[in-house]
Amino acid sequence: MGDRQIRVGLCGFGIVGQGVFDHLTRKRKLLGEQLGADIVVTRVAVRDRSKKRDVQIDSGLVTEDSLSVGTDPDIDIVCELMGGTGLAKEIVTRALAAGKIVVTANKALLCDHGKELLATAQKHGGHLLFEASVAGGIPVIKAIREGLIINDFSRIDGILNGTCNYILTRMTNEGLSYQEILGEAKAMGYAEADESLDVDGIDAAHKAVVLAYLAYGKWTNFQEVRLAGITKINQEDIRFAEDNGYAVKLIASLERERQSKALYVSVLPALVPKSNSLGSVDGVFNAISIHGDVVGETVYIGPGAGRHATSSAVISDIVDSVKLLIFGGPEGRFPFLDPAPKNGSELPIAQPEEVHSRYYVRMRVDDRPGVMAEIASILASRKVSLASVTQKEVGENAEKVSLIITTHMTTEKAIEETVDDLGRLDSVLCSPMTMPISEFGQ
Amino acid sequence: MGDRQIRVGLCGFGIVGQGVFDHLTRKRKLLGEQLGADIVVTRVAVRDRSKKRDVQIDSGLVTEDSLSVGTDPDIDIVCELMGGTGLAKEIVTRALAAGKIVVTANKALLCDHGKELLATAQKHGGHLLFEASVAGGIPVIKAIREGLIINDFSRIDGILNGTCNYILTRMTNEGLSYQEILGEAKAMGYAEADESLDVDGIDAAHKAVVLAYLAYGKWTNFQEVRLAGITKINQEDIRFAEDNGYAVKLIASLERERQSKALYVSVLPALVPKSNSLGSVDGVFNAISIHGDVVGETVYIGPGAGRHATSSAVISDIVDSVKLLIFGGPEGRFPFLDPAPKNGSELPIAQPEEVHSRYYVRMRVDDRPGVMAEIASILASRKVSLASVTQKEVGENAEKVSLIITTHMTTEKAIEETVDDLGRLDSVLCSPMTMPISEFGQ
Repeated sequence: MGDRQIRVGLCGFGIVGQGVFDHLTRKRKLLGEQLGADIVVTRVAVRDRSKKRDVQIDSGLVTEDSLSVGTDPDIDIVCELMGGTGLAKEIVTRALAAGKIVVTANKALLCDHGKELLATAQKHGGHLLFEASVAGGIPVIKAIREGLIINDFSRIDGILNGTCNYILTRMTNEGLSYQEILGEAKAMGYAEADESLDVDGIDAAHKAVVLAYLAYGKWTNFQEVRLAGITKINQEDIRFAEDNGYAVKLIASLERERQSKALYVSVLPALVPKSNSLGSVDGVFNAISIHGDVVGETVYIGPGAGRHATSSAVISDIVDSVKLLIFGGPEGRFPFLDPAPKNGSELPIAQPEEVHSRYYVRMRVDDRPGVMAEIASILASRKVSLASVTQKEVGENAEKVSLIITTHMTTEKAIEETVDDLGRLDSVLCSPMTMPISEFGQ
Repeated sequence: MGDRQIRVGLCGFGIVGQGVFDHLTRKRKLLGEQLGADIVVTRVAVRDRSKKRDVQIDSGLVTEDSLSVGTDPDIDIVCELMGGTGLAKEIVTRALAAGKIVVTANKALLCDHGKELLATAQKHGGHLLFEASVAGGIPVIKAIREGLIINDFSRIDGILNGTCNYILTRMTNEGLSYQEILGEAKAMGYAEADESLDVDGIDAAHKAVVLAYLAYGKWTNFQEVRLAGITKINQEDIRFAEDNGYAVKLIASLERERQSKALYVSVLPALVPKSNSLGSVDGVFNAISIHGDVVGETVYIGPGAGRHATSSAVISDIVDSVKLLIFGGPEGRFPFLDPAPKNGSELPIAQPEEVHSRYYVRMRVDDRPGVMAEIASILASRKVSLASVTQKEVGENAEKVSLIITTHMTTEKAIEETVDDLGRLDSVLCSPMTMPISEFGQ
């Protein structure tokens, strides 16, 4: 066992908190031998002391006063594993103001308050580490910060929400509707009772904001993320993808536009070629494809959530914290852009007219002469060039057909205006569904 | 620019040396701002001063005396990028004996002398870093050492040689023979003039030995690696794989046997299910699948060689070296096994009777009654259970047929004895080709 004792306080003792406690306790001796320091959990804050838990814990360590754990002068490292942005923010802020090291898996907190929390850490000589906040057990934050340090990133694309990927995979493999799979996923505990955080892309957007900070030194506002979830995806989209060598995936993308160098942050369902590095990542797995100017593309795949995967990442941060406590040093990557404004925080956000992609548009239209001419004329007026048209009858009512078009390269602005125009046509029955066709990767 | 100057000496100025010099020079200012230290290459050892190079370099920095660079008291970090195990070993040993930090990409050197070199580093307070030695630009050594630090690894499987993967991919996609592709690959510079290091699996075995040390703290002797290359793979193997949902890949595997906990290190061509995490990694890419007891499976894919990818990894080591110089600290993971002997170096190597797998066996046999009975009887005598039999006519000579069998789970020892017995049958024309059927992963 090492010479120095490092005291860890856990705020939150749910799935992840118990996992961290359990794995740290089981491997305490081995970690101690490696680090020359004895990592010991000395306090654990819970919401309800009386609640039954899987993990055995000395009741003397347990308190319901999480703020007191965050500020306890005897604690070196505070792990915030409660979630939420209220009390969690208070605890993290106070711990950082006390010069402590804080480890968190809380992407919502980082997305909303990361900038000020990191400033507080810097001001008081503490550190804020958050490997577990993105892609769970995959050490992708370490890869960006340290392993790929010499690289500028032209783009980063990720499958960052396992629930969405699970639903889309089952829709693809079993031909069931979004609603059917969601119901089952809830019943099995794969989706939250309030599924909005997952299926509306909010969770993935929080993670995209964290990644954008790491890769570009820019804290994007949540409102600046171009965001859509998976709730409008239906079997027509899935079948079109299947028939044309694509998979439908919810993709978080960070991209620096080629000409303006502005930053585009998006979470959108997309048609991804199956041959692409993310195209065949199925089920609850997460995956990230990183394009570095020196290394080229590297891809990271693994479990993005869950007790053990998240614990693995939290503990890797705790070990790095121990090194910081004993030896000091920087945390790794900081605004590092070339060419770039002097400060990554000044990086402009890309406007819709700067964003280029191919697009997929599905709409339900009247089956009568002239409709296709109306649609084609709108596309032409917006200078959007048609790549393919697929028309299928819908159900028994042969008066309505489903029309799917794909476009050549155009701008996000042009496709938005086109879809607005199309939605206003009498012959188009409801607002068209659109998503980009992603051609990144191998 | 940072306060402190860190002086780097490059030994070797070929493809990788020039890349490291170039990228360090171009991003010197950005790295300096981040690290608070100015990284500058102060000496470069080349074999031949008069040789023309892509990269501009002040001739005052250049010397042909590489040993003097390794021992120069003004140099903090020595990068050994020459390759080979003669002069390179001498330089690395002397630099470590002088307490310097050495960064190398030389897997052959590590495989043959890693144990003594690390002991020298430890004795004199230096460090030996080698992120670039395995899987080029993919920061997989950092992942094992730091990101996944709380994990024990039940198995690690990798595609670690891009040349072999390129050849096998083209054999699959184009139906050409091994010899045809190899000839082209040599002409295009994708394979060395002496291809043996690549196609006989030697390069991959060097890397497997390095990974085994990192993951298990055990330096395996090269002779202990179960090794076969790709030279015997033919279109029958490729077609069988295609027809049955597999791909033929040269897989480096590290595995702790379930019962004995002994370590098995192998580099063998294998049938890998296409749905597996490594089954669809094609072309020159490298990929590693790591099974951790806490995190589960994580997978890393990217360029395994080349000037820029290797430079990216070397520079990440240089940056870590700068942190070690300024702040100190351990290098990360060290023998860390659970359950394990006290010291990972005492881990036993798995014997053939401890190694379990399904196997593929291809042989050319006489097409006459009774042959299948002879073969089946040999399998039965070795307690090897047949899973499938495929028989095809070979060419115009209908007297010879190609027979492919797959087995259920058996041991390496049983399959070796079976193949020996089969090879001795008069009706079997030459030694059967065999490879494991890998079922690891997703």
